[in-house]
Amino acid sequence: MNSLPANVQTFIGCESSYEESRIVIFGAPYDCTSSYRPGSRFAPAAIRGESYGIETFSPYQNKDLEDIAVFDSGDLELQFGSPVQALSDIELRTSKILEDGKIPCMIGGEHLVTLGAVRAAAKRYPKLNIIHFDAHCDLRNEYLGAKLSHATVMRRCFEIIGGGLYQFGIRSGTREEFEFSKRNTFMNRFNLERIEDTVNELYTEPVYFSLDLDVLDPSCFCGTGTPEAGGVSFNELMTALNALSGLKNIVGFDINELSPNLDQSGASTAMACKLLREILLYFFK
Amino acid sequence: MNSLPANVQTFIGCESSYEESRIVIFGAPYDCTSSYRPGSRFAPAAIRGESYGIETFSPYQNKDLEDIAVFDSGDLELQFGSPVQALSDIELRTSKILEDGKIPCMIGGEHLVTLGAVRAAAKRYPKLNIIHFDAHCDLRNEYLGAKLSHATVMRRCFEIIGGGLYQFGIRSGTREEFEFSKRNTFMNRFNLERIEDTVNELYTEPVYFSLDLDVLDPSCFCGTGTPEAGGVSFNELMTALNALSGLKNIVGFDINELSPNLDQSGASTAMACKLLREILLYFFK
Amino acid sequence: MNSLPANVQTFIGCESSYEESRIVIFGAPYDCTSSYRPGSRFAPAAIRGESYGIETFSPYQNKDLEDIAVFDSGDLELQFGSPVQALSDIELRTSKILEDGKIPCMIGGEHLVTLGAVRAAAKRYPKLNIIHFDAHCDLRNEYLGAKLSHATVMRRCFEIIGGGLYQFGIRSGTREEFEFSKRNTFMNRFNLERIEDTVNELYTEPVYFSLDLDVLDPSCFCGTGTPEAGGVSFNELMTALNALSGLKNIVGFDINELSPNLDQSGASTAMACKLLREILLYFFK
Amino acid sequence: MNSLPANVQTFIGCESSYEESRIVIFGAPYDCTSSYRPGSRFAPAAIRGESYGIETFSPYQNKDLEDIAVFDSGDLELQFGSPVQALSDIELRTSKILEDGKIPCMIGGEHLVTLGAVRAAAKRYPKLNIIHFDAHCDLRNEYLGAKLSHATVMRRCFEIIGGGLYQFGIRSGTREEFEFSKRNTFMNRFNLERIEDTVNELYTEPVYFSLDLDVLDPSCFCGTGTPEAGGVSFNELMTALNALSGLKNIVGFDINELSPNLDQSGASTAMACKLLREILLYFFK
Amino acid sequence: MNSLPANVQTFIGCESSYEESRIVIFGAPYDCTSSYRPGSRFAPAAIRGESYGIETFSPYQNKDLEDIAVFDSGDLELQFGSPVQALSDIELRTSKILEDGKIPCMIGGEHLVTLGAVRAAAKRYPKLNIIHFDAHCDLRNEYLGAKLSHATVMRRCFEIIGGGLYQFGIRSGTREEFEFSKRNTFMNRFNLERIEDTVNELYTEPVYFSLDLDVLDPSCFCGTGTPEAGGVSFNELMTALNALSGLKNIVGFDINELSPNLDQSGASTAMACKLLREILLYFFK
Amino acid sequence: MNSLPANVQTFIGCESSYEESRIVIFGAPYDCTSSYRPGSRFAPAAIRGESYGIETFSPYQNKDLEDIAVFDSGDLELQFGSPVQALSDIELRTSKILEDGKIPCMIGGEHLVTLGAVRAAAKRYPKLNIIHFDAHCDLRNEYLGAKLSHATVMRRCFEIIGGGLYQFGIRSGTREEFEFSKRNTFMNRFNLERIEDTVNELYTEPVYFSLDLDVLDPSCFCGTGTPEAGGVSFNELMTALNALSGLKNIVGFDINELSPNLDQSGASTAMACKLLREILLYFFK
Repeated sequence: MNSLPANVQTFIGCESSYEESRIVIFGAPYDCTSSYRPGSRFAPAAIRGESYGIETFSPYQNKDLEDIAVFDSGDLELQFGSPVQALSDIELRTSKILEDGKIPCMIGGEHLVTLGAVRAAAKRYPKLNIIHFDAHCDLRNEYLGAKLSHATVMRRCFEIIGGGLYQFGIRSGTREEFEFSKRNTFMNRFNLERIEDTVNELYTEPVYFSLDLDVLDPSCFCGTGTPEAGGVSFNELMTALNALSGLKNIVGFDINELSPNLDQSGASTAMACKLLREILLYFFK
Repeated sequence: MNSLPANVQTFIGCESSYEESRIVIFGAPYDCTSSYRPGSRFAPAAIRGESYGIETFSPYQNKDLEDIAVFDSGDLELQFGSPVQALSDIELRTSKILEDGKIPCMIGGEHLVTLGAVRAAAKRYPKLNIIHFDAHCDLRNEYLGAKLSHATVMRRCFEIIGGGLYQFGIRSGTREEFEFSKRNTFMNRFNLERIEDTVNELYTEPVYFSLDLDVLDPSCFCGTGTPEAGGVSFNELMTALNALSGLKNIVGFDINELSPNLDQSGASTAMACKLLREILLYFFK
Repeated sequence: MNSLPANVQTFIGCESSYEESRIVIFGAPYDCTSSYRPGSRFAPAAIRGESYGIETFSPYQNKDLEDIAVFDSGDLELQFGSPVQALSDIELRTSKILEDGKIPCMIGGEHLVTLGAVRAAAKRYPKLNIIHFDAHCDLRNEYLGAKLSHATVMRRCFEIIGGGLYQFGIRSGTREEFEFSKRNTFMNRFNLERIEDTVNELYTEPVYFSLDLDVLDPSCFCGTGTPEAGGVSFNELMTALNALSGLKNIVGFDINELSPNLDQSGASTAMACKLLREILLYFFK
Repeated sequence: MNSLPANVQTFIGCESSYEESRIVIFGAPYDCTSSYRPGSRFAPAAIRGESYGIETFSPYQNKDLEDIAVFDSGDLELQFGSPVQALSDIELRTSKILEDGKIPCMIGGEHLVTLGAVRAAAKRYPKLNIIHFDAHCDLRNEYLGAKLSHATVMRRCFEIIGGGLYQFGIRSGTREEFEFSKRNTFMNRFNLERIEDTVNELYTEPVYFSLDLDVLDPSCFCGTGTPEAGGVSFNELMTALNALSGLKNIVGFDINELSPNLDQSGASTAMACKLLREILLYFFK
Repeated sequence: MNSLPANVQTFIGCESSYEESRIVIFGAPYDCTSSYRPGSRFAPAAIRGESYGIETFSPYQNKDLEDIAVFDSGDLELQFGSPVQALSDIELRTSKILEDGKIPCMIGGEHLVTLGAVRAAAKRYPKLNIIHFDAHCDLRNEYLGAKLSHATVMRRCFEIIGGGLYQFGIRSGTREEFEFSKRNTFMNRFNLERIEDTVNELYTEPVYFSLDLDVLDPSCFCGTGTPEAGGVSFNELMTALNALSGLKNIVGFDINELSPNLDQSGASTAMACKLLREILLYFFK
Repeated sequence: MNSLPANVQTFIGCESSYEESRIVIFGAPYDCTSSYRPGSRFAPAAIRGESYGIETFSPYQNKDLEDIAVFDSGDLELQFGSPVQALSDIELRTSKILEDGKIPCMIGGEHLVTLGAVRAAAKRYPKLNIIHFDAHCDLRNEYLGAKLSHATVMRRCFEIIGGGLYQFGIRSGTREEFEFSKRNTFMNRFNLERIEDTVNELYTEPVYFSLDLDVLDPSCFCGTGTPEAGGVSFNELMTALNALSGLKNIVGFDINELSPNLDQSGASTAMACKLLREILLYFFK
């Protein structure tokens, strides 16, 4: 008797083997430091499942996911209640992918997961830069008594890379965070306008790209834990991603903070899928 | 004893008799080929019921539904599971209205229902043209093995009219669909900008207008089965509808793909009602 | 470099290979003849995903899913809009499993999917009997003009097996359906009380078991398209399943009509998972 | 040209003319004194719309709605913000139906609407009795400063009929309400057990029956503004309705407090439809 | 033993004492004349509760709520079913705050609540002007037979102040309302563009500002009872609020018509919180 | 000028001062180890807010909350991401209340919060016993690598009190947990039947009572993270609580695992409120 196939689930069109792939997707379903409304843990499964509602072909780039080599390795099983352990597991997975000469693409989860990936990337690329799209600074030193939190993640990343943090779209934070950013980071508030300058500046440098989806205006992306009015549109984000694709050395990236339970219509999840398709097509060389 | 009236339900302000009316509304609550998320079958009832939340007067046109003659003949009872039979019933109803010298206004339902109306219109108007607003090409030859599907409907319509298909706002499809459109249809991708040219070209020609509501950006219209980011705004759509009202010979039209269960706030249903009011006022001569 | 594993999704604890398994699960995500409220197409994925919220161990039976051999072969890709084609695909899959000497466990989908499995089972077991738990007769000859429908499925099954249809929990139907059942089927209305008699009668006979989950009272199972008050409780259903486990020759079974979108709390999906665990443990010999 | 029919909406199977009907349905979509969670105004439309999900035939009574004569006259248009005016409009409609020798069947709305119908019935039947199924006493003299309120409605009814108030299933109220009931009403707390005694007592007397659906346990009927645990089951309510059908002179009845927006699964609305079918069949002579 | 503190709930950062405060917040949770979809009664509690999801610091104004003195006095307990009594209670509370030399900030509820506050303000400031942002005219003389209604509120306010009504963003109303506005009010249809002119005109005059949140486009603010397409964006509203902050004599203001139950994602409630933060910071001198 | 009152929020009828109160309520809004579906953090606020939908009077006990002395001290602000710190804060609060000779009543949060309260109680009452109502054993030694988890909480509690753990209603767990319970705890599976025996056994002993609301059947209580079919009814729970009220020395108690976002109808939250009222009235001496 010939067997029936097992039930393999991937992001649409990402069915290459690990060995042949240039980009490797994995999910980091963790949201335990979310102080306000948890739920981003459900994002990786939702993005995979709902990706079958979009096409593999992009009329924006005239490219198709089926023509590039991407592997989807599923989700990490992370320990709830222990950010230390969770970040360690993320770092391990990221390091493995980097060591094999591939580009990690992490689907969060809350934004804290970025720290695990950045730790791995910074070890491999000591002069790592970070381009960070977000509504929030994420630059607190401590939040509700914790050093490891979605609200402190970019401060922790900054401490690792010691500069080279480029923030865009920021429109929320404490006075202290904005003051910290004046002294320490490149910050483009409210929009993504000067992204071309940053791309020129970092043209051949190693860059990690972190996309907190709440940089988008809640009108087009309401499915996130802390929606913040006054954000960028889908078209503005697409223009910026197009610019980013000019970078010669993107070493890793993530997309985080989708919270599917807050997205009754499914439009936010569908947009996350579409953005992931576009990013994969933009960043694949 | 004098009797109590029966419970007649119509779209707001459409209370003329069949005989005196110029436009006749009917619902086609069918969504059985929707492969992703069904639910547009509930649209006609929702649009009628929620229409009482808007006014009959349009400050955009300075006109009132109560001043024009429209009849609402309720919904067809369509056979689920048989697209062939459903399309036949739609064609029959459309033909009846056309034969009586009136303009059919069909409320879908999934986009496949357009095929039934176009069959009837093309029989009566052999040189029929179609203006098609949509996020999706709908130009596949076959979808999941089926020739009759929401994803093939415009290909089938094209085969009937043999050209004269004008598509606007398209931003999703397979590579094959976009290539087909290059050879066979007029396609305006991503927006509605060149609508004036088409209006001038078809000035006195017979035109059927099909509005797939997902041409709108999901930010303003999330209540649809396959929301596709990067669409047009309400104001852009209103500008295009205003342009369309310049056509001398609109012989029928439809509005489809509202999925009320995906519209928790009711804003999409309310917009569908408002658009239907505006279209009725624009197209009524 | 050693590779990362692919993302295989199964019902919890069902991770045996096809070859070593005695029971084979597959999903039939089809709901296209649902005339009232579609959505059961999403059940197989929901049951797999949510099964991780229950344990593999049953304190009712003192058995564990990890100790039995079950393979989950994922979902069929069925053609929406064509019941004929969909049933043919289901029959093919069921036949393959039966031919390999295994027991098929199908997760619907609407109840019509049972017809495909029964066709395959009846071919292999000419004297097949069916035990049918449901709120509805499903005995119409035709529904909205269609012969193939969730409302006619048991009539079609009856025609295949020519008798041997045992119905329990029925509390809704037309006068004609109840009259048909008087002449042709064994019907136990409103509850499952005489199940022991049927088990004794069919002790060594080949039996297909079809569980329409709406046999349960909507108080404990609201997540279904046509909830019908006055049904059985979870404990009553468990007692009946325990009785059924006395049958010597269950050749196939299904569980259908969960509609996850109608189950905001997740309690219905969780119950479906728990019932599937219990059924697998009860029927596995 | 022959015309198309208008879009008449009725409760399923209630398509007789006013003249030939024995029972006349009307909706009272009013909920303005609901202090906690409004929404029962949407019940009449929901019950009509969702009634097409049930059958016209009752296997409990072996009767069919299509064999009895009921007319559905649609909804009153009531003035929000003015209980005085709304009750007056309800009284007028009820009086008209009573004067024509028919039985009014009112679909609420909040429970206050019962007062309008009772005023009309008490004028025509001076020795009117009321049988009241509810979770709540509704016997306050005043609520939040108002004499007319869902929380005072049975006190107001009591003042009109001066005794003859039989309350069942009550499990919530202030100490004062329960003390008032001890002196003035027949109260059967927590269940419907002594309904047979009341039926015997009122065998040939004129009786108005008011069914607040929250008498049901929230497990089977969660779609109501003030769900109160510890209520009766569907089967217990059916037994009591069967007993009530022994009364010789039911002069009017209502069913109220369904709040469809709180009923995500639709199971409560479906049960309200089923109960209305059963009551119509039980009470029609 | 030292005591534990009581559970005081305020809008974020508004923890000054009544005596030291310049602005006093109170809630008016009333929605009883809402003819279409009630629910704005839940807005004050939702805005307070969800305000902890935003920051106290505004990067738009470089100011912090913790640096200004605002007191939150909780919600009025208003009589449902009696607009007369409810408006009287609102007027009383507003008068008290005005008499103590402070600025009232009322959180609705439906728009009718504005009438209570305007009555109090007009008594204290006989030459009161009103700046009114809304999608709807609210200028009917009567609605469903009622003089006091969300649809008549600005007509009633106009009668009190006898002119000086400036309306912006209006895009819905009857023909009669638009004609009334031509003769009697300053109306800026569809947008907020000429707000600077009004600010210049009323530079030192006493002004009451009423913000019906449905002036915003439903794309960014869907959580409201009558969403009306074609509204203003968050950034356009912020620009107008910035202009308003140039007024020397704002004597009171309100923010109304958030309906939290229609805002599944929470994005509308979050925007209402952010707007209230910005308004408090703009208007505090 | 006389001031306006601040906005104090309490559970209904619990408005005594700390000093005069015998029972002190506090909320522990923590759910960070919830591996499946978080959300119980929102329970304390929901229970307080929705408590105004029930009465203060209990017809079951003929007692009124207004006649007993209870203080509501609001919620702890707990550190997300650090169970160690959160439990320490809970222990501190509980100890303070116990030291002042009062009975703590904690509203969770996930079940892990019980550990903090038990630590405090066990210090003060070395021979502490625990009565535990739950669907789940909660007896794992470790869960997903963590010692502190909702799934291990009763194992940790057992280690502190060294015996004296009485478990009721349990119907889910691993084989290992059930085997542990055989050797170490008193376990009454599936129901609450032998509670009288335990009450007799512990008649004058110090007892902490922990009520995981998922002991209830999901039919009446669906609003919880891991709904488990086959639970107890409201009336069965009330009977058991009545039995518990015979205990002479209840030193503390909690009610946990309500997840309001999973309770669309509000019926679960309303039941939690009603149960808390009944428990306060039962346990207050």
